[in-house]
Amino acid sequence: MTKDGGKQDKKAQQYGVTPQSVDFNDWYNEVVKKADLADNSPVAGAMVVRPYGSALWENIQRWLDDKFKATGHESLIFPTLIPMGFITKEADHVEGFAPELFTVNKIGTEELAEPYVMRPTSETIIGHMWSGWLNSYRDLPFLHYQWGSVFRAELRTKAFLRTSEFFWHEGHTAHADEGEARGEVRQMLDIYHEFCRDVLALPVVRGEKTASERFAGAVATYSIEGMMRDGKALQSGTSHYLGQNFSKAFDVKFQTREQREEFAHTTSWAISSRIIGAIIMTHGDDFGLIMPPRIAPIQVVVIPVGRKDNFDQMVEEGEKLAAELRAQGVRVKVDKRDGVTNGFKYNDWELKGVPVRIELGPRDLESGVVVVKSRNGDEKETLPRAEAVSGMTARLDGIHDWLLSRATSFMLEHTIPVDDFETFAAKIEEGNWVRAYHCGDADCEKSIKEATKATTRNVPLDDAEFFNDHGEGQCVKCGKPSAYGKRVIFGRQY
Amino acid sequence: MTKDGGKQDKKAQQYGVTPQSVDFNDWYNEVVKKADLADNSPVAGAMVVRPYGSALWENIQRWLDDKFKATGHESLIFPTLIPMGFITKEADHVEGFAPELFTVNKIGTEELAEPYVMRPTSETIIGHMWSGWLNSYRDLPFLHYQWGSVFRAELRTKAFLRTSEFFWHEGHTAHADEGEARGEVRQMLDIYHEFCRDVLALPVVRGEKTASERFAGAVATYSIEGMMRDGKALQSGTSHYLGQNFSKAFDVKFQTREQREEFAHTTSWAISSRIIGAIIMTHGDDFGLIMPPRIAPIQVVVIPVGRKDNFDQMVEEGEKLAAELRAQGVRVKVDKRDGVTNGFKYNDWELKGVPVRIELGPRDLESGVVVVKSRNGDEKETLPRAEAVSGMTARLDGIHDWLLSRATSFMLEHTIPVDDFETFAAKIEEGNWVRAYHCGDADCEKSIKEATKATTRNVPLDDAEFFNDHGEGQCVKCGKPSAYGKRVIFGRQY
Repeated sequence: MTKDGGKQDKKAQQYGVTPQSVDFNDWYNEVVKKADLADNSPVAGAMVVRPYGSALWENIQRWLDDKFKATGHESLIFPTLIPMGFITKEADHVEGFAPELFTVNKIGTEELAEPYVMRPTSETIIGHMWSGWLNSYRDLPFLHYQWGSVFRAELRTKAFLRTSEFFWHEGHTAHADEGEARGEVRQMLDIYHEFCRDVLALPVVRGEKTASERFAGAVATYSIEGMMRDGKALQSGTSHYLGQNFSKAFDVKFQTREQREEFAHTTSWAISSRIIGAIIMTHGDDFGLIMPPRIAPIQVVVIPVGRKDNFDQMVEEGEKLAAELRAQGVRVKVDKRDGVTNGFKYNDWELKGVPVRIELGPRDLESGVVVVKSRNGDEKETLPRAEAVSGMTARLDGIHDWLLSRATSFMLEHTIPVDDFETFAAKIEEGNWVRAYHCGDADCEKSIKEATKATTRNVPLDDAEFFNDHGEGQCVKCGKPSAYGKRVIFGRQY
Repeated sequence: MTKDGGKQDKKAQQYGVTPQSVDFNDWYNEVVKKADLADNSPVAGAMVVRPYGSALWENIQRWLDDKFKATGHESLIFPTLIPMGFITKEADHVEGFAPELFTVNKIGTEELAEPYVMRPTSETIIGHMWSGWLNSYRDLPFLHYQWGSVFRAELRTKAFLRTSEFFWHEGHTAHADEGEARGEVRQMLDIYHEFCRDVLALPVVRGEKTASERFAGAVATYSIEGMMRDGKALQSGTSHYLGQNFSKAFDVKFQTREQREEFAHTTSWAISSRIIGAIIMTHGDDFGLIMPPRIAPIQVVVIPVGRKDNFDQMVEEGEKLAAELRAQGVRVKVDKRDGVTNGFKYNDWELKGVPVRIELGPRDLESGVVVVKSRNGDEKETLPRAEAVSGMTARLDGIHDWLLSRATSFMLEHTIPVDDFETFAAKIEEGNWVRAYHCGDADCEKSIKEATKATTRNVPLDDAEFFNDHGEGQCVKCGKPSAYGKRVIFGRQY
């Protein structure tokens, strides 16, 4: 998957990371662990997020939270537990979630007649509370969200991607009419798209899910889909129009301006800690992670390159340089470890994907220069110190653009329009997405999945950035006339 | 409890809040609900925190989180579940928490041979993870914390004060030696003290808990204790030195500089969502909440006072004024509701405890003045608009000082040094704290509790702001010689 595979193989062996091309799965697991993002836990299917991963998640939360507030949303905190009876009130919802529930049957010394479940998502209990808070159209819209953990049993787990406990925000809104609710669904999808592209440097395709891939209980589900370096898709965020399904199940009704009684139209939307998996698998290379600069916990690492007798002095000089960068709003760390070699430090920070490294040695100091190395593969540069500092923001933006452009090219190259099923199966097997016409029938989708492990990712929206051209054709599998008015994206998924 | 009880009674009836002096408990519950801080939930003992309460909690989190990071701590995310077997590894710990545990016995369709518990606190699972991460003295200290929910069964629940699920940070640190660990314990206690005094305007007493009031598994527990307006104590934060108890139970050991194997010395510390209860019950009055300005979600509310024909214009003018205040860093809301009277709005924002209200009418606008009302009971003032804006930060600081001073006077007036048990019982019954000499015997403490419902709050530290004078005497209950070298604080508690 990289041109200089041989060279990188050798380097990777030194650092102990399996190259992506040898085993993408091993590469992923090793990077997660060795970059100190997360660790396995003694709890079935749950991970421990370590400080570097937690700092990344905090930056993600901060950006999104600011955006939610700026668009008029308010945070709340709902209980982690939900009465089992709530889950069964919406028929599709219970069918979707029942096999994955964590059941609490005892509190203190009391055996519970009706058990609780640890929330797999909170539509039900939020619907119940809304029912008590909503009276008149004047109370609407409710624009709510919460940050927290959710719990869904997973048999085969993988850090950030599939864990029994994961972290997210869940947005929940209620509106007086369908138009406003659908507007909210699109607004949040677009915010997710903006976040991925402009902050995480992730190209994603905005589209609507086919019926069989909808959220349990939704009228329409929209997603953003990203392509990982192994060609698989990762659903990176979802936004659902729930119609009146949950408001009818939980009696969320109000008096209209015209004094009629009406059920609210509700939405829900989420990005979870999976997005960290997308960052790792979209940007990472055989040296490890590459952190998108705008979200990176550490944007620049300063390595004081000293000998035993002047190491402390160089650390001090490193701190001065760091202070100059911080004054520019850059997040900097000075690596003060004295028990390890410079080479070890370089490899360690490359593995952790810090966008820019600055080496500061005694002779550089005398000459007023520093050595700057970007994580995009460019060669080291020796720059006047002042220039390195003043140019850092532009350099970080450049790395962002490079990451986005590289990932976009990769996605475009590996997304193939196909009109026959034999080619479809071959292209999927080679690690591509396929764009194909489809009849829209759920059983036909199922037969494609059984034959190729590929599912519909989404039907790109008319204003999606990619793959939004209109057209009609015959279903790639069964030959019936196509639905949707455009090609559907198929791919294997995480 | 207030001088003008009669007048306030009448006003309170209008707004529908029971006065504190009539029933403090009803007052509390009504304020929590009517100020939109929290609501009851359908889950036994758990509450729903509504947007106004959530915004307050977010501000609390933000200040503390910044402080933790500034003092070198790193956040992590540990699982919500803990294997039941972990809890039983530390003998005192299991004794303390076993009666309060939430038990998960089923995940998906699988009945669990060994159940999980929802964490009541995370020392055990963190100890287990540390054991894997710790090798050498070079790895230490671990300076960790996490934000999240914990779960402890409660029979009689009360929003924020006693809920089965509550919200907190839990700090967990590991150190190479006792001195450093004890230094950490004191540092965090002092940060909590600073936070309460300088941000929440809460006077609190720093001290050490007596042995019978220690955290389950701790060698020493320190607390900050605040006095509520009914004279009861609220333990508002704790910091524990855990010695090597948990590190021995979970094998948290390391190689010392001298190549010996040694167990780490660990600490833990927490402030929870109870602190919101302390804010309510320390500062609130018969009109409702009074939010300490530095943490208030809304510091200033602007009420456009218009008639039907010019209301929109006044709202627009209100937004202009709000923009000027925001430019000064003030958190402002403009009350744009048009279906309610101005009087309703005034009462509503007083109930919610917004520190400053500005009324803006058409004639004020023409004269270039605004009407300013502080929530400290001062009369309305008519001020030149520019002066109201430029003086707002000082005004908010003034309200902070007034709150802190009022609460400090109240605590000092209601804390009585006592040397005989009859007076002790009477002073407790009247709603005071008592400062008394005590022998240090746990059974003697128990007999005091049985007789008066009062427990030891803490033994003030030598550098505590209040009640730190040294002395010796006879135990107020049994007459034996006193322990501790100073008087102990006793009180009824939440």
